[in-house]
Amino acid sequence: MRVKMAPQGPEVSRLIYGVWRLLEDPQGASPERVLGKLHACLDLGITTIDHADIYGGYRCEEVFGHALRTSPGLRQRLELVTKCGIMLTNPARPRNWIQHYDYSRGHLIGSVEQSLRNLATDYIDVLLLHRPSPLLDPAEVAEALRLLVEQGKVRHVGVSNFTPAQFDMLSSYLPLPLVTNQVELHPLRPEPFLDGTLDHCLKHRILPMGWSPLAGGRLMTGQGEAEGKIREVLHGLGHKYGVAADTVAYAWLLRHPARILPVIGTNQPERIAGAARALSLPLDTQDWFAVWRAAMGREVP
Amino acid sequence: MRVKMAPQGPEVSRLIYGVWRLLEDPQGASPERVLGKLHACLDLGITTIDHADIYGGYRCEEVFGHALRTSPGLRQRLELVTKCGIMLTNPARPRNWIQHYDYSRGHLIGSVEQSLRNLATDYIDVLLLHRPSPLLDPAEVAEALRLLVEQGKVRHVGVSNFTPAQFDMLSSYLPLPLVTNQVELHPLRPEPFLDGTLDHCLKHRILPMGWSPLAGGRLMTGQGEAEGKIREVLHGLGHKYGVAADTVAYAWLLRHPARILPVIGTNQPERIAGAARALSLPLDTQDWFAVWRAAMGREVP
Amino acid sequence: MRVKMAPQGPEVSRLIYGVWRLLEDPQGASPERVLGKLHACLDLGITTIDHADIYGGYRCEEVFGHALRTSPGLRQRLELVTKCGIMLTNPARPRNWIQHYDYSRGHLIGSVEQSLRNLATDYIDVLLLHRPSPLLDPAEVAEALRLLVEQGKVRHVGVSNFTPAQFDMLSSYLPLPLVTNQVELHPLRPEPFLDGTLDHCLKHRILPMGWSPLAGGRLMTGQGEAEGKIREVLHGLGHKYGVAADTVAYAWLLRHPARILPVIGTNQPERIAGAARALSLPLDTQDWFAVWRAAMGREVP
Repeated sequence: MRVKMAPQGPEVSRLIYGVWRLLEDPQGASPERVLGKLHACLDLGITTIDHADIYGGYRCEEVFGHALRTSPGLRQRLELVTKCGIMLTNPARPRNWIQHYDYSRGHLIGSVEQSLRNLATDYIDVLLLHRPSPLLDPAEVAEALRLLVEQGKVRHVGVSNFTPAQFDMLSSYLPLPLVTNQVELHPLRPEPFLDGTLDHCLKHRILPMGWSPLAGGRLMTGQGEAEGKIREVLHGLGHKYGVAADTVAYAWLLRHPARILPVIGTNQPERIAGAARALSLPLDTQDWFAVWRAAMGREVP
Repeated sequence: MRVKMAPQGPEVSRLIYGVWRLLEDPQGASPERVLGKLHACLDLGITTIDHADIYGGYRCEEVFGHALRTSPGLRQRLELVTKCGIMLTNPARPRNWIQHYDYSRGHLIGSVEQSLRNLATDYIDVLLLHRPSPLLDPAEVAEALRLLVEQGKVRHVGVSNFTPAQFDMLSSYLPLPLVTNQVELHPLRPEPFLDGTLDHCLKHRILPMGWSPLAGGRLMTGQGEAEGKIREVLHGLGHKYGVAADTVAYAWLLRHPARILPVIGTNQPERIAGAARALSLPLDTQDWFAVWRAAMGREVP
Repeated sequence: MRVKMAPQGPEVSRLIYGVWRLLEDPQGASPERVLGKLHACLDLGITTIDHADIYGGYRCEEVFGHALRTSPGLRQRLELVTKCGIMLTNPARPRNWIQHYDYSRGHLIGSVEQSLRNLATDYIDVLLLHRPSPLLDPAEVAEALRLLVEQGKVRHVGVSNFTPAQFDMLSSYLPLPLVTNQVELHPLRPEPFLDGTLDHCLKHRILPMGWSPLAGGRLMTGQGEAEGKIREVLHGLGHKYGVAADTVAYAWLLRHPARILPVIGTNQPERIAGAARALSLPLDTQDWFAVWRAAMGREVP
């Protein structure tokens, strides 16, 4: 299932595969293993891959790129999303002595060029500013992005974890539209459903990407009271619909009118398939609200 | 006193009579009793009546409609507001097993058609979406509302309890302007005066409707500390101006530049008259701030 | 260093001298003393002076005007900002029995005319509405401001302490653009950096004025834990850059892309010079985030 991310945005798959934890795969990150998961995705129609420069301590992009090199022709079947701007204190970045953000022209351009080398490609489909920075200079960012797009290194630009105010401010400086806002979306974080974040995406006709759709696993295994109550509902609905609880969790996001694009982070091919099953699972409205009630801890008013 | 609800909105009376508690009238809800209160309103210039499908456990509209049928010609002297979208768990709706919202095309149209039958009329002056829903699909709502307006079943459309972000998002999909946002407004709930809700109405030149202007009675009889302090000020001002404390509470809302339309919910005709007296009671600025200080529990900065 | 406050705004100096505490100067407020500080400012390129009708219990403007009268030709080298709208309970205003706001047409015009007399000038460069009022009538304010600008008594109009929603609402009624929003900005109040306030200024291409850049002195001498941690970082950076800690605090604001205009309130000419040194102190990005981390009490996410 393919959708347009924004009126002037790229076509992407409705489910997005995220490689945040690529290096945590118990079966390793050899080109064969990476390609195995990638082909599992492609077989399910999942063609969009979510990266960031910092994933895996600045190493995921490169590992992924190694796999791509061994399989000519694969790149053109994918849409690659990556991110920039977070500066970790990490052995790979010895000059960083404090975690911070860098959206200077020089850093932006250098970061994208490094991502291109790492990913063994000559273009990024969607470049995201990873987090809003209190020190982001929108005019400088606009100039860097204009150059990157003009050179063909970046095709589309978006943001991640931005508030509507930050999004609109930056937009007002850019020569091209932002095509998405990637935010954390799952029943343990219902705020974006109410605080204007998803309304903002709907208003601007852009599809939000939803990171950690299973709350980084907490939804399925967390021991807190909220986790337990939500999981009970997910399991009940799984039983009703004849699917696994995590499939219900994905279906719950997919049912939202903002047409959320969940970013699936599992390293297990069978769990990717479970997520894909959610595409054909239209949750009943009352069932949706059963999850919502568990998420909010109360009846809707 | 008549005002225009919005540049392209209906003319309504400055005070609006709400029938939320129509069935709780100790003197009953016979057509005679309902008409009695209705004529008390009309004599005071109050021509706009606020309904919702759910009021009185889905029964108020019909009781009101019974009264209207006995008095031909009365309908055309009134503006009828009603609402839709809340799904109560109620014997009248046995399929609802969880309180939720339904803004599907089918439900919206069915709900309005039922309201028309209940109210014994062939048009609603203003239809409000009763509460924002995290699952509201604006494109689907827009299509349903377009059809209802095209068919003449609904003349104007508004919302209730929406945030500015929710209002603007929905607006961007609609073929017609939203003419009001009905929100809870009284000194025990000063937030909308500060959080952008009333600013948003002013900016869009729409008049907000204010529900529970006496906080559902708490303002006059509540035993909390905040209630007591506000009531003390209202009584003091009542003494100064020679009116009852509830008249001061209405005048306090009417003094606001957003031109709030208070929805009066009392079943006592003499209290309706007390509210109408507020229309000719221009509160002094410092007196207004005396209520505000009591509401906020502190001096303005 | 001069900047334009807004596309259609006045040219002002990058640092602004505020006279909030003019009457608290241990060396008095004689015309000579006032002129001494004023010339210290001018020598440093600081030409914009921030007043309010209420400063010094409604007396600062007049004291400043006395000094101006003794120095013909000085007025035209300055930009005068003043404010209106706060009504203090103060012996100078015996009719005020409660602290409140007055943005009525009559009060606005009267307040500006009084400020003109006090300041011994025939125009205000920038008039600010001092605080948002829940009772501000934007149509009435617009009419008063239109008249004041038309008469040449006020050249530009702005606001202070407004939220973006309040700013946009008022703007929608005005015949001229608001040229600034003066807000409290310092590391002990990081909220405006995140909550949309500075984003709003950037979006509208207006420069925010920052009041209390040293948190009214708390940043340098406050005994709280937050004060201590931030001060430790400021002192460390002062040592690194070879300047005083307060210079670092100003540089921290000046480094922000919103081009904040700090309002310096000190009565000590040498401290004014210390602030001016910040103009040529471009803080390193990581150093900026060291102050931010101390301000937030945690690493950025």
